[in-house]
Amino acid sequence: MSFTFAISHTVGRARAGAFVTPHGVVETPAFMAVGTLATVKALDPAELRTLGAQMILANAYHLHLRPGDELVRELGGLHRFMAWDGPILTDSGGFQVFSLETLRAISEDGVEFRSHLDGSRRVFTPERVMQIERNLGADVIMQFDHVVPGQSEAPLAREAMERSARWLARCLAEFGRLQAVGGEPWAVGDDLPPTAHRPPPTQALFPIVQGGIHAELREESARRIVDLHEWPGYGIGGLSVGEAKPDMYAMLEVTDAALPADRPRYLMGVGFPEDLVEGVRRGVDLFDCVAPTRMGRNGTAFTPDGRVNIKRTEFRRDPRPLDPECGCAACARFSRAYVRHLFTSDEMLGARLLSLHNVHFLVALMRAARDAVRAGTFDAWSAAWLGRYHAHAAPALT
Amino acid sequence: MSFTFAISHTVGRARAGAFVTPHGVVETPAFMAVGTLATVKALDPAELRTLGAQMILANAYHLHLRPGDELVRELGGLHRFMAWDGPILTDSGGFQVFSLETLRAISEDGVEFRSHLDGSRRVFTPERVMQIERNLGADVIMQFDHVVPGQSEAPLAREAMERSARWLARCLAEFGRLQAVGGEPWAVGDDLPPTAHRPPPTQALFPIVQGGIHAELREESARRIVDLHEWPGYGIGGLSVGEAKPDMYAMLEVTDAALPADRPRYLMGVGFPEDLVEGVRRGVDLFDCVAPTRMGRNGTAFTPDGRVNIKRTEFRRDPRPLDPECGCAACARFSRAYVRHLFTSDEMLGARLLSLHNVHFLVALMRAARDAVRAGTFDAWSAAWLGRYHAHAAPALT
Repeated sequence: MSFTFAISHTVGRARAGAFVTPHGVVETPAFMAVGTLATVKALDPAELRTLGAQMILANAYHLHLRPGDELVRELGGLHRFMAWDGPILTDSGGFQVFSLETLRAISEDGVEFRSHLDGSRRVFTPERVMQIERNLGADVIMQFDHVVPGQSEAPLAREAMERSARWLARCLAEFGRLQAVGGEPWAVGDDLPPTAHRPPPTQALFPIVQGGIHAELREESARRIVDLHEWPGYGIGGLSVGEAKPDMYAMLEVTDAALPADRPRYLMGVGFPEDLVEGVRRGVDLFDCVAPTRMGRNGTAFTPDGRVNIKRTEFRRDPRPLDPECGCAACARFSRAYVRHLFTSDEMLGARLLSLHNVHFLVALMRAARDAVRAGTFDAWSAAWLGRYHAHAAPALT
Repeated sequence: MSFTFAISHTVGRARAGAFVTPHGVVETPAFMAVGTLATVKALDPAELRTLGAQMILANAYHLHLRPGDELVRELGGLHRFMAWDGPILTDSGGFQVFSLETLRAISEDGVEFRSHLDGSRRVFTPERVMQIERNLGADVIMQFDHVVPGQSEAPLAREAMERSARWLARCLAEFGRLQAVGGEPWAVGDDLPPTAHRPPPTQALFPIVQGGIHAELREESARRIVDLHEWPGYGIGGLSVGEAKPDMYAMLEVTDAALPADRPRYLMGVGFPEDLVEGVRRGVDLFDCVAPTRMGRNGTAFTPDGRVNIKRTEFRRDPRPLDPECGCAACARFSRAYVRHLFTSDEMLGARLLSLHNVHFLVALMRAARDAVRAGTFDAWSAAWLGRYHAHAAPALT
């Protein structure tokens, strides 16, 4: 099997491990930067590599609409298309489709919706989404799931969880069929004759645990998923979508207990620095979020003392770097005064530098968490880190 | 003297030389990328260094208004502020001030205008502009000049040329006074006692030859300038501002004959690839223009076969790089299809990659011109280069 996961150290529920993919090893816990449209906004893949990013994300819904998953396949798959030779994960687009105002109809078969770009009619079924993610060619692909708002009552959350479980079985069947067919330009050896020695599969399908903020639904979701197949890893979805933080943390604890310990867990769409540390504390290995690049474009920098809005007047003459303890390519060279000048002048380099700094911040935060787990000091490290972060994270600064 | 210029080879009027500044050597002919607001739009100084840029530009008018030249001085000068340790040239802002719709009054003393940002009243005199450029701390600073439209009749062009010459004398006096005062944070040793061994001056003042498209005015302008002082280099202004290309080339030939051969000539605000080659043919050593970054942000790439608008539908599935002969960081990794996708998706990386490619294109073009002059093959090289460029530069492609 070309996807393996090995845990080297644990401290409480926190784990340090290595997730092996066809495009390289991801040391966990790890933060994945989000490249929705096959580009991590404002950044170059070479910068991501330099700052220590290991694995990045792209989105099947968005890439299906533009430039089209068939086109990406024709051009050699996502890795070649976006010039990122490390591991990639694609989200299935479930979250996007179910967030659309132009959503038309949900049935057992799938979802009918209109493109947010041109209004064209589209249908996503579990099978169709597997085909799209196969065309894109990421290392890890997520199942198509039914996503409901974070505060949904139990009946609605149950309906979505059960449908997601049924759709997972269809995803798995189609995923297997597509791997047997092979022939993708990026899938070396997949088109060999059936009797030949076949290389290991080049994609891994992750299921997604749903169930809203209802512990019994989360447990049932995990049980159904585990009973269906031996998965190379698990997604945890439907969190950080409006529910209270204590609810999210409680669901992570339930999920941690319900999932096999020896596979990576990916907490989807999370999150802010404090969420990552809280997630690692509760057995999560992988995270992703648009926050570092989105906030970076808006002028907000993460620091160990909370968020800083660089556009504030107080930074006009400030010769210090964004974060004096940071070693990123922005902090090593530029003053707050300069970065503020870039933002007040609408200069693109401002968004570049803050996006770079923020992604580096989360990547480095997870590196520090790994080191602390390996050293056996994670509990003290995380308590100290959270204490400092919250002590200064006054709303006035953000 | 810390500014020297040595010509190693000539072919006809074309020259290959080395312009030595306190922040390093500029091998000429050379193209300078424009960083109006202390940032070359969309690019990081590290990228400029990697692509081979030697010297860059900033603008005194814009930086005076935002963030303020006093602030830049306080933060250690332009080099430190923008993290570019190579040579920098600042334009005086004459071109900008005389282009303002909010220009209020021109007198012998100077120009009164309102800021394009906040409408605040400002006065630029030759002395004031020298103080601003001293605060910014570029290696080469341009005189404050009176700029008129490119097609101006002789009387108006003469008035502006004569005023520019009188202002030059005032610039020189103030420049000398400021250097004697010293004390700038970036000017090491300038604050030594008068009896101490003083380091060589850290700034060079360039005059600007004016005279519109009138040969006799250009000659007179050059003569007045040369008679006033022995300058470390010469600007050629008021070209590429609406006049016909043959007029510009004719003025370059007049100026070439009228200026000392042993000093660098800087053709201000020029230009497009073909203009650079034509300029080198006529004895020009330095160029600058916003075209590579502005066109890059708009989706246009320079290639040896003319300009290409990457947003065109024909590039949707094109797996080739922007320019198959180019070695820049964009062409080495990305397809036209990918760059087009970035532009149709409004992704910032698109503007980054095309800006990078276009600046690299002009920097590499001047490197090729240098090599051809050194090899004695410049005439054949430039004829072949221009022939190919014009053969394909059909309007349909741009």
